[in-house]
Amino acid sequence: MKIGVIGCGYWGPNLIRNFIQSNKVQELFCCDLDPKRLDRMKKLYPSIHVFPDYKELLDLSDLDAVAIATPVRTHHSIAREFLLQGKHVLVEKPMTHSLETALELVKLAEMNKRVLMVDHTFEYASAVNKIKTIVESAELGEILYVSSIRVNLGLFQPDINVVWDLAPHDISIILYVLNKVPESVNCQGKAHYKASIEDVATTSLNFENGVIAFIHNSWLDPNKIRKTTIVGSKKMLVYDDIETQEKIKIYDKGVEAPPYYDTFADFHFSYRYGDIYSPRIDDYEPLKKECEHFLRCIGEEECPHTDGRDGMRVVAILEAASKSLRLRGTEVSVQTWETEKNAAPRSIDHSALLTAEVNK
Amino acid sequence: MKIGVIGCGYWGPNLIRNFIQSNKVQELFCCDLDPKRLDRMKKLYPSIHVFPDYKELLDLSDLDAVAIATPVRTHHSIAREFLLQGKHVLVEKPMTHSLETALELVKLAEMNKRVLMVDHTFEYASAVNKIKTIVESAELGEILYVSSIRVNLGLFQPDINVVWDLAPHDISIILYVLNKVPESVNCQGKAHYKASIEDVATTSLNFENGVIAFIHNSWLDPNKIRKTTIVGSKKMLVYDDIETQEKIKIYDKGVEAPPYYDTFADFHFSYRYGDIYSPRIDDYEPLKKECEHFLRCIGEEECPHTDGRDGMRVVAILEAASKSLRLRGTEVSVQTWETEKNAAPRSIDHSALLTAEVNK
Amino acid sequence: MKIGVIGCGYWGPNLIRNFIQSNKVQELFCCDLDPKRLDRMKKLYPSIHVFPDYKELLDLSDLDAVAIATPVRTHHSIAREFLLQGKHVLVEKPMTHSLETALELVKLAEMNKRVLMVDHTFEYASAVNKIKTIVESAELGEILYVSSIRVNLGLFQPDINVVWDLAPHDISIILYVLNKVPESVNCQGKAHYKASIEDVATTSLNFENGVIAFIHNSWLDPNKIRKTTIVGSKKMLVYDDIETQEKIKIYDKGVEAPPYYDTFADFHFSYRYGDIYSPRIDDYEPLKKECEHFLRCIGEEECPHTDGRDGMRVVAILEAASKSLRLRGTEVSVQTWETEKNAAPRSIDHSALLTAEVNK
Amino acid sequence: MKIGVIGCGYWGPNLIRNFIQSNKVQELFCCDLDPKRLDRMKKLYPSIHVFPDYKELLDLSDLDAVAIATPVRTHHSIAREFLLQGKHVLVEKPMTHSLETALELVKLAEMNKRVLMVDHTFEYASAVNKIKTIVESAELGEILYVSSIRVNLGLFQPDINVVWDLAPHDISIILYVLNKVPESVNCQGKAHYKASIEDVATTSLNFENGVIAFIHNSWLDPNKIRKTTIVGSKKMLVYDDIETQEKIKIYDKGVEAPPYYDTFADFHFSYRYGDIYSPRIDDYEPLKKECEHFLRCIGEEECPHTDGRDGMRVVAILEAASKSLRLRGTEVSVQTWETEKNAAPRSIDHSALLTAEVNK
Repeated sequence: MKIGVIGCGYWGPNLIRNFIQSNKVQELFCCDLDPKRLDRMKKLYPSIHVFPDYKELLDLSDLDAVAIATPVRTHHSIAREFLLQGKHVLVEKPMTHSLETALELVKLAEMNKRVLMVDHTFEYASAVNKIKTIVESAELGEILYVSSIRVNLGLFQPDINVVWDLAPHDISIILYVLNKVPESVNCQGKAHYKASIEDVATTSLNFENGVIAFIHNSWLDPNKIRKTTIVGSKKMLVYDDIETQEKIKIYDKGVEAPPYYDTFADFHFSYRYGDIYSPRIDDYEPLKKECEHFLRCIGEEECPHTDGRDGMRVVAILEAASKSLRLRGTEVSVQTWETEKNAAPRSIDHSALLTAEVNK
Repeated sequence: MKIGVIGCGYWGPNLIRNFIQSNKVQELFCCDLDPKRLDRMKKLYPSIHVFPDYKELLDLSDLDAVAIATPVRTHHSIAREFLLQGKHVLVEKPMTHSLETALELVKLAEMNKRVLMVDHTFEYASAVNKIKTIVESAELGEILYVSSIRVNLGLFQPDINVVWDLAPHDISIILYVLNKVPESVNCQGKAHYKASIEDVATTSLNFENGVIAFIHNSWLDPNKIRKTTIVGSKKMLVYDDIETQEKIKIYDKGVEAPPYYDTFADFHFSYRYGDIYSPRIDDYEPLKKECEHFLRCIGEEECPHTDGRDGMRVVAILEAASKSLRLRGTEVSVQTWETEKNAAPRSIDHSALLTAEVNK
Repeated sequence: MKIGVIGCGYWGPNLIRNFIQSNKVQELFCCDLDPKRLDRMKKLYPSIHVFPDYKELLDLSDLDAVAIATPVRTHHSIAREFLLQGKHVLVEKPMTHSLETALELVKLAEMNKRVLMVDHTFEYASAVNKIKTIVESAELGEILYVSSIRVNLGLFQPDINVVWDLAPHDISIILYVLNKVPESVNCQGKAHYKASIEDVATTSLNFENGVIAFIHNSWLDPNKIRKTTIVGSKKMLVYDDIETQEKIKIYDKGVEAPPYYDTFADFHFSYRYGDIYSPRIDDYEPLKKECEHFLRCIGEEECPHTDGRDGMRVVAILEAASKSLRLRGTEVSVQTWETEKNAAPRSIDHSALLTAEVNK
Repeated sequence: MKIGVIGCGYWGPNLIRNFIQSNKVQELFCCDLDPKRLDRMKKLYPSIHVFPDYKELLDLSDLDAVAIATPVRTHHSIAREFLLQGKHVLVEKPMTHSLETALELVKLAEMNKRVLMVDHTFEYASAVNKIKTIVESAELGEILYVSSIRVNLGLFQPDINVVWDLAPHDISIILYVLNKVPESVNCQGKAHYKASIEDVATTSLNFENGVIAFIHNSWLDPNKIRKTTIVGSKKMLVYDDIETQEKIKIYDKGVEAPPYYDTFADFHFSYRYGDIYSPRIDDYEPLKKECEHFLRCIGEEECPHTDGRDGMRVVAILEAASKSLRLRGTEVSVQTWETEKNAAPRSIDHSALLTAEVNK
């Protein structure tokens, strides 16, 4: 297959590396406006073809697909051009900058029967699929709430705020694991460095039956934290993606009433009640799994796990969050759309698929 | 002096132990409805006098003061009775269950010229006073936002939700350190175990000039976390009260643009930019400091650091949070009150006081 | 019962507090050469009797027992005096400063049928007894080696080196858990601050069948570490006494050959192979359990778990370590003694005893 | 330049990747007995030439140098062949399997005026060079002792024990930082899985003036630990190579006498006395730096920082450790040799060199 990668900044190189190591890719075409980045790519991977302008790829009639890793505001127009040319498309998250444009891409891909996939990388991660299996096994009991923190220092985005930049990971993980879409969203945040580009925010996803997910994102936190806590009626699970040894910990709840203490120091001791268990996680690069999956989808061997509709759901939530931000935290409904109403819930459980022969 | 302690549950024993070790206390009178708790106290401290009913203390004419560590809903009526009897009063946090009752206590204490102190313990902690000194020195630059997490498993309160139970600590620390009162509050949470008693919530305090404080509280989290991040325009500070060695860490901000990475694994490495510094913290029990301060206030040697007005401010914020909760997260103004308007900002810097001769 | 506590420095106050809270103790007699320490004790526990000179306790005919928490070099002579007076004795670890004096105390106690107990506190700790149960269940397989680190900053002892000060804890835990006595010892260390008082050392205990235990002790390490790793042929166990939440972790071994890596960063990622499990540990103060046990031993309700022979075994190992230190690390046999040859191995499994009704 | 890499197992791929990214390397020739590994390399780096037998490289007259990453026992004979052919040689650590063979390589290289470099990677690491700068600045005072732990699970070597496998890193770091060679060595260990191949060991390096370094190595530890503590008379430094954020921490010593405690819980609290400081570390791959340095040494632009004599010193210490192991821990002198006596101490301070323009 012949694949194009548009954008060689922070994420593009990872796409290039994975495509170049795949048996299915014969030729790779890479584009970036910055000649330094193109040079760097060419040096690392001498076999690639490089182009400053992605438009040149539109003329390559035997190109099969493109992966788009450009600034968010350009996703829609670039993806649109290639879909109209009949190419398959993999888009970086968030899929587009508005629900309307997301819907247009979904419709275009469905009409033209092309693969439209969104790069929700974590849905291909071993740990996230392990969590999905655990949650679906009801080991945690009924899920009560989720709390997710994704913060770090720097890598400001010039065109999108911290919610659009970081929360897509949290949202796609939560929707995937809970297999639910929220009804409404609250979002509160502030822009300290650049007007209207919030650099810190907290978002609540309100699901039916009182289930709630809290998401905290920041570009200004001195520590890099990627931590998701899932609290069930029976057990709790903590997923810490920074941890190398114990990414997932499952906590038995145990008894509820702590003992009385006689001294202040006793009182300050951390307490816990039950056993803690950390299952083994297969170690592989999620993006490698995702790129291979994309290539198999193009070859019609598989259906996309993270398709355009998944991308659209996340964009719908982000749009509601933006609206809530402007309304100073007021609850905003997540907009639904005609085509979605008739859509079956995502039925492919790809966790089974993923755990099979990961490193064969 | 003769001091009464009302309530010998989770916190009362700490008050008793500290009063009994003070040179200024001659006799200690302890009350609890549960005879087992009274027996336990009598066994630990044979010299105390015990009473099942606190009303008996009202008859002790030479009693100087009482400390109230009963359920929150009873604070106001008990404190009121003793203030009316001309006794000095130390009340557990939150001071009362409503702004109206808080205001009544404040007025009563001011009219009768009695000490009304609220047990905002952390304002007496070495680490918190160190943080206040650092913030006021402008070492962090202008404060942009605060993010505070206070969660643990269990110790549900039967009469108040998790915001009224845990957030008073976060709020009193934030108000003390920033020396500011928020203009409005957003609060989102859910009650999973007992109707109308939220067990998880996230609260935003909105200050003037875009400063914001996020507070996350839960009774259902498997980990005990007490962590406050203060982000300034120059440096950041993380206060982790669970840490024994490095409670406070100060992070230099350093350069802002991370380098490009060639591989996924490199990309995943945590990054940081500047030096990290963890100042030495004096190790003492905050409550010991507070109890001694209360006794000196009674003796008119000092003015209360955490007086009734401080308690009232926190209650005003909690009341706004409750209202926002009912309005599903909508922003709610923090109510001001007549007497406050004329009040000078808290002018006593007791951090200096505290650091002097802590362990003499 | 009437109990004496000799020495109110670092450890004595813990003995006093536990004895005073016991139902079985009617009167407590406390001695210290330093009047300030005596005053502090009297203030904390007004009911105790205080004496500057422990010799005064020798005249109290109705005294049942003494607990000795004085400098190590004085243990033997004080214990000897009280055993000769027919009193029961609990001695701080290490029991004496030489094997010869240890043996004399053991013989004296056995002849006079008095309780001679040594304060190997950790043998009463919940975590250590849990570990013993796990090791004896063969869950870890055959034990291959133990590695124990006990280091911190400060609290230099004036009369004994760091091996005699800190290693008794490691040694008593290892002997108790493995139920074995080493055949020989190597020890290497240096004295940096005071001649002949080593402040850092590493000790190896060589057991039969190639089992080895490494112990590292220091008074000069900036971090407080108390960590014991037990490696079995099937699983490994790590006991970290500083951890509050996960004191014990059990590691499944899993596959042995790590995968090849393509990049340096991948190569640097920590790897693990199996599940990790952290069992719940009952939380109680080991010394409380030990003091109650001592009182029951005096009352002939129980046999001492940590008796004089246990104390003597640890002293024998320490003496061999001192000899090896002088021989610059050469292997030195642990001396056996006549009475030991006929002794049955410690047959009382008090872990069962301990876990029953810990907090009744 | 034309460079050969012999051995494409665990470490070879890192050499290949770094040489291929260098501007100075025109052609790369890679050898491995395993065709699967050769295929993998060819797939990752299509431009390389691959050979199953390294002997074929001996015939390439315009080959400039080889890097040898084969099993340790083969280092000497392979390096010897290429040095005799007049090629420059970079050898994986430990340089050879015996002092005698190490000395032969050193002499051969000096006679033929070829570069003989040993891959002591950590001497090129940013953190290690920062530590060397700190130690040489006397900020820590006089160095009293070093304690180094390097353990993990697995990656057994078939032909060398854990000391020869892991300790070369600790030894090369310690010698480099202290700028001293030990006078004698003690080593204690056990072989549990394969006769005579110790899988756990502890080694002491005894320097003049009572300075001592403890090294603990294991292939059986459930945790991956790479931690070196350097204790000075003024401050201490901890280097934790697993840490991503705070690889180096410097501890102020502060006062020495801890306070008395009244309760067991207080007693258990970790204590510290002074400030802690963690300097920023430049983040780059040490091997990249090393490979570039090797290429510049070949081009006579620089002198090797980790030359054959450095490799020989480490081998001399390993040989003494092996002898001590056979003597069950007895102290063994580190053998000196004629040529060394006349050698000046390593005079090039390449820390300055390294910190300059690291990422240019």
